[in-house]
Amino acid sequence: MQTIKVGIIGAGRIGKVHAENIAKFVPEMEIKTIADPFMSEETVEFLQRLRIPNIVSDAEAILKDPEIKAVIVCSPTDLHAEYVIRAAEAGKDIFVEKPIDYRLDRVHAAIDAAKKAGVKLQVGFCRRFDHNHHAVYEAVRAGKIGDVNLVKISSRDPAPPTIDYVKVSGGIFYDMMVHDFDMARFLAGAEVTEVFAYGAVLVDPAIGEAGDVDTAVVSLKFANGAMGIIDNSRKAVYGYDQRVEVFGSKGAVMDVNDTPDNTVFYGEDGTVSGTCYKIMWDRYTGAFAAEQQAFADAVINDKPTPVTGEDGLYPILIAAAATKSMKEGRPVKISEIEG
Amino acid sequence: MQTIKVGIIGAGRIGKVHAENIAKFVPEMEIKTIADPFMSEETVEFLQRLRIPNIVSDAEAILKDPEIKAVIVCSPTDLHAEYVIRAAEAGKDIFVEKPIDYRLDRVHAAIDAAKKAGVKLQVGFCRRFDHNHHAVYEAVRAGKIGDVNLVKISSRDPAPPTIDYVKVSGGIFYDMMVHDFDMARFLAGAEVTEVFAYGAVLVDPAIGEAGDVDTAVVSLKFANGAMGIIDNSRKAVYGYDQRVEVFGSKGAVMDVNDTPDNTVFYGEDGTVSGTCYKIMWDRYTGAFAAEQQAFADAVINDKPTPVTGEDGLYPILIAAAATKSMKEGRPVKISEIEG
Amino acid sequence: MQTIKVGIIGAGRIGKVHAENIAKFVPEMEIKTIADPFMSEETVEFLQRLRIPNIVSDAEAILKDPEIKAVIVCSPTDLHAEYVIRAAEAGKDIFVEKPIDYRLDRVHAAIDAAKKAGVKLQVGFCRRFDHNHHAVYEAVRAGKIGDVNLVKISSRDPAPPTIDYVKVSGGIFYDMMVHDFDMARFLAGAEVTEVFAYGAVLVDPAIGEAGDVDTAVVSLKFANGAMGIIDNSRKAVYGYDQRVEVFGSKGAVMDVNDTPDNTVFYGEDGTVSGTCYKIMWDRYTGAFAAEQQAFADAVINDKPTPVTGEDGLYPILIAAAATKSMKEGRPVKISEIEG
Amino acid sequence: MQTIKVGIIGAGRIGKVHAENIAKFVPEMEIKTIADPFMSEETVEFLQRLRIPNIVSDAEAILKDPEIKAVIVCSPTDLHAEYVIRAAEAGKDIFVEKPIDYRLDRVHAAIDAAKKAGVKLQVGFCRRFDHNHHAVYEAVRAGKIGDVNLVKISSRDPAPPTIDYVKVSGGIFYDMMVHDFDMARFLAGAEVTEVFAYGAVLVDPAIGEAGDVDTAVVSLKFANGAMGIIDNSRKAVYGYDQRVEVFGSKGAVMDVNDTPDNTVFYGEDGTVSGTCYKIMWDRYTGAFAAEQQAFADAVINDKPTPVTGEDGLYPILIAAAATKSMKEGRPVKISEIEG
Repeated sequence: MQTIKVGIIGAGRIGKVHAENIAKFVPEMEIKTIADPFMSEETVEFLQRLRIPNIVSDAEAILKDPEIKAVIVCSPTDLHAEYVIRAAEAGKDIFVEKPIDYRLDRVHAAIDAAKKAGVKLQVGFCRRFDHNHHAVYEAVRAGKIGDVNLVKISSRDPAPPTIDYVKVSGGIFYDMMVHDFDMARFLAGAEVTEVFAYGAVLVDPAIGEAGDVDTAVVSLKFANGAMGIIDNSRKAVYGYDQRVEVFGSKGAVMDVNDTPDNTVFYGEDGTVSGTCYKIMWDRYTGAFAAEQQAFADAVINDKPTPVTGEDGLYPILIAAAATKSMKEGRPVKISEIEG
Repeated sequence: MQTIKVGIIGAGRIGKVHAENIAKFVPEMEIKTIADPFMSEETVEFLQRLRIPNIVSDAEAILKDPEIKAVIVCSPTDLHAEYVIRAAEAGKDIFVEKPIDYRLDRVHAAIDAAKKAGVKLQVGFCRRFDHNHHAVYEAVRAGKIGDVNLVKISSRDPAPPTIDYVKVSGGIFYDMMVHDFDMARFLAGAEVTEVFAYGAVLVDPAIGEAGDVDTAVVSLKFANGAMGIIDNSRKAVYGYDQRVEVFGSKGAVMDVNDTPDNTVFYGEDGTVSGTCYKIMWDRYTGAFAAEQQAFADAVINDKPTPVTGEDGLYPILIAAAATKSMKEGRPVKISEIEG
Repeated sequence: MQTIKVGIIGAGRIGKVHAENIAKFVPEMEIKTIADPFMSEETVEFLQRLRIPNIVSDAEAILKDPEIKAVIVCSPTDLHAEYVIRAAEAGKDIFVEKPIDYRLDRVHAAIDAAKKAGVKLQVGFCRRFDHNHHAVYEAVRAGKIGDVNLVKISSRDPAPPTIDYVKVSGGIFYDMMVHDFDMARFLAGAEVTEVFAYGAVLVDPAIGEAGDVDTAVVSLKFANGAMGIIDNSRKAVYGYDQRVEVFGSKGAVMDVNDTPDNTVFYGEDGTVSGTCYKIMWDRYTGAFAAEQQAFADAVINDKPTPVTGEDGLYPILIAAAATKSMKEGRPVKISEIEG
Repeated sequence: MQTIKVGIIGAGRIGKVHAENIAKFVPEMEIKTIADPFMSEETVEFLQRLRIPNIVSDAEAILKDPEIKAVIVCSPTDLHAEYVIRAAEAGKDIFVEKPIDYRLDRVHAAIDAAKKAGVKLQVGFCRRFDHNHHAVYEAVRAGKIGDVNLVKISSRDPAPPTIDYVKVSGGIFYDMMVHDFDMARFLAGAEVTEVFAYGAVLVDPAIGEAGDVDTAVVSLKFANGAMGIIDNSRKAVYGYDQRVEVFGSKGAVMDVNDTPDNTVFYGEDGTVSGTCYKIMWDRYTGAFAAEQQAFADAVINDKPTPVTGEDGLYPILIAAAATKSMKEGRPVKISEIEG
């Protein structure tokens, strides 16, 4: 088995998730160094238990290390593009957390840097690797439903983020529905050409005061003629509710939510089965591992990455169009944004 | 459309159910007369609303009426055999509620009378006509599961009958599991050759004091080598729980309980769907209509009845064997009973 | 039991369905007369089997009959309003099939006539009476999901109508989604204030040539702040697919499709359960009976009808707005239509 | 975090599974040594990738190592008892794969040795740790179903083992149903007092020629009055089918099979969802990890092990009774075996 040495930039929540998954499930990758200027003692202990030899503060230790072949960028979002560019210049293959950036020029700069350097770039849209959503994708790709007519996505979080976070999040379309825009393109097998968005403040007035909405409904048009509908809510009391459905000329394929177990209780007041997961990391635990396995496969076996820089760009364009649509009360073409 | 005139003997609960279903759903049958010596005013009004022209006390009015081609026997159980014999002698086709009788000689006498007279005899094992159980049967008959290896039946009632009823019921195997013995033969496509029964008093000690058990588990051997397991309980707090499963060389087919509606509630404490039906007539409403449609079809189009006199006999033999097995603590062959 | 005599105007498909359901399931209503100028021999025989005493060609026989208290209008759509007005003038309570009319002035005239005459008016939005959709409604009304945030409806037919029908149907929003507009109002407990519609021709180009679309996605805004999404397709190869979901502050409630039976087959290639119904009358058989029971209850016990004239009007306003939205590529307020 | 050093005796299929799970999911345990006299090159490479420092042929290296606190016994079954005794004498806590042995005197000797030495002993009944079965157990223990009346277990394998294996397996009750006997005790919360067994050769005549059956149905009586039914088949074409159900005075709780994903396909020929797992290791992947986590917890925090030596003994007693019951055609009390 061929193995490569990798470095992880950023040891916050997602950095630790990737570190743990690589240590457990991706024997082809050996984490040589992880860098973060602000690590708690617990974080250091956690990383030591994963037997990572170099736990450092400065990402430079990774970027300058000729042994390190690939970099996992888990820094704060506003540094994503910078690290992508620097890692590309250092000739390293790159996995970068989503979004590459909210500023389109920065996104383009990052993509261009990777292309110019001839390095691989994979963006962390982890849901594509979820066992359920991926199985829907494969059924669609295998032609089981014939031509795609409609993509339908429900995506609801168990609880809204803090108001402080909402203020800097870029808004529900950039922060939350961006995952669904990626999923919509992924499942439809076509680009979104136009969107129409309704949004409302139904969960918490403070979210409205912070300039955002907490509930949104978006219609999509795809280049292949299909249409899509997405709904988002910041608060589903029953947990992470993420279901996708694709309807076509030969049938429909959909998934239902995972639950921690498959038990069913027959009681006087009804038949009760489990709720959705309440913690995102529990819900997508397999997906996070699978996306790193896919990255390792792309790097080691010189394959294209399964989520390219463009795959990182388009959902942001759609988010921009949806934001504009909601504000202006009209459908907005993606070409208006790109232009 | 050819139609026939029929008479109903007995206007108790089941007599009224058959009367209503024939009036609504079996246009080929016209109820000319219904007879019962003990009818309340409500019963008479109910039957009048069904536009039954002759509502009488004496069954003789039916048996002597040359216009009446077929008779539905819904009398008390201990008169079933007598009415079958008299109706047979009068040359009428006969539908008789289950069981034909608990006394084997009376069952044989009834079956023999029908055979001698050359009239049709159908026994009221209504569950064979249930949309779910019947669809399982059809899947098995169509060869979808290959050779039958195992038949598995759960059958639980929402609440036990009165202790007075328990005392005269003949016991759980004759009164309740007899339906499942019929279903087991029906689904296996083979006769039961041996049974082993465990019983216990777990629901109400008064049932034990009345000489019966309220919970029972029975293993079966079939003539074709397959095996079966049946469980019964007199009390499932969640309602009528009646599920069957047939497992074979090419797969398994099973049914799940009907519920009044198909809604699902996602709440904080779990995902809740409907309970089973709590009223037997609601659960098997379609089955009761379908068995009369089948009887009409047999009579008018001169086909064999779908539930013959022998189909009425065998479950009683199995019930006798199960009762003996439980008492004697050993497996009992059906041939011990028949002999 | 108090009973009333009713007349049915129109003995086409839906007229016969109502006649049969009333005969079987609504003992409070006695069909005295059914009128249709174009009845086949089979139709006459069918109606005779239901024991309807007067089978006539001219609706005048119903409108002039002082014994007839209520009228069921099942004529061709373009005569609905006229018969409503004439029946109202004759002082009869009225059940009219949906839509009252496609011309708004005619709808208003019909509603006004009923109001002026002080007679009851019920419109045939049968899906409100479906056991599943109604149970969702009741869960919402009972407060199980808290405040309504989102209504989500999928409604797909097994096969498109003939092109000839498409040409005169008024378009998918008037002909098909009108049911979902009614359901959306019913479930949200609020009026629709604005709609945005996308439509496409994905099923059959001939539908496009006839000036209609066969697939549509509509976003809704309700007066109470909630939002809605509806998708329609003229062709789901797996049958009638009609699911509703309401999401709110305390949870979500949804229904799944009815199937002819509840069996499940475990086979080598997957676990297979039943498909949706393929025939509309099978899918909504109970709903058609229930709406007539509700009408009888309203008439006999002098209650408001559960689907009023306004309930007949608003879905048509929404259909008009959706049609305009799709054509003009912008969201359309209902007030633009009403004005 | 306190950690301990462990050794693994045996590097066959199950030894490697435990090694991998401990390496990935049980940071509290550090595998110092693994011993097996017959390791392929692939096995050695696999173990090296897990970073196990000592890969040796002789178990003595483990038993004599004072640093090693606990031993995982994964040797061939007929050496289980011997290694348990030797590890106990060496003062090490012990995890031993099921069954401890098929010879009752050896089982007792092993249990006694552990007791005498005062070391912990855990037996590898992994299914108790399965997320579904465990959640059923917890619902029962929490009193959700009230008093237990009935335990119902279906357990079917995707394909029979080789005939060579069948010959030395001890028979279906020892080899396969022993898991279900353990599960029955676990779920009922009571000891089995009597069993009745039917067996048949329905899958492959060669299994019969080897002196075993391939399909079996067993009834159980528990000390608390409850009853049980278990069915086993060596061949379910649709995969591992393992469902448990517990019915009691307040309801029933059951689990359904895990599937690789939760997708549902609506097609013309039915609604298709996934099949059961076809590979045992995939089905119980989480359970194997969880039982080692539980063992580590018991050893490090000085808690009782969750599956004791007696828990290893009783299912073997029940298997002996079931074997005797099938041969002698009568119910057999467990006390007949123990005596």
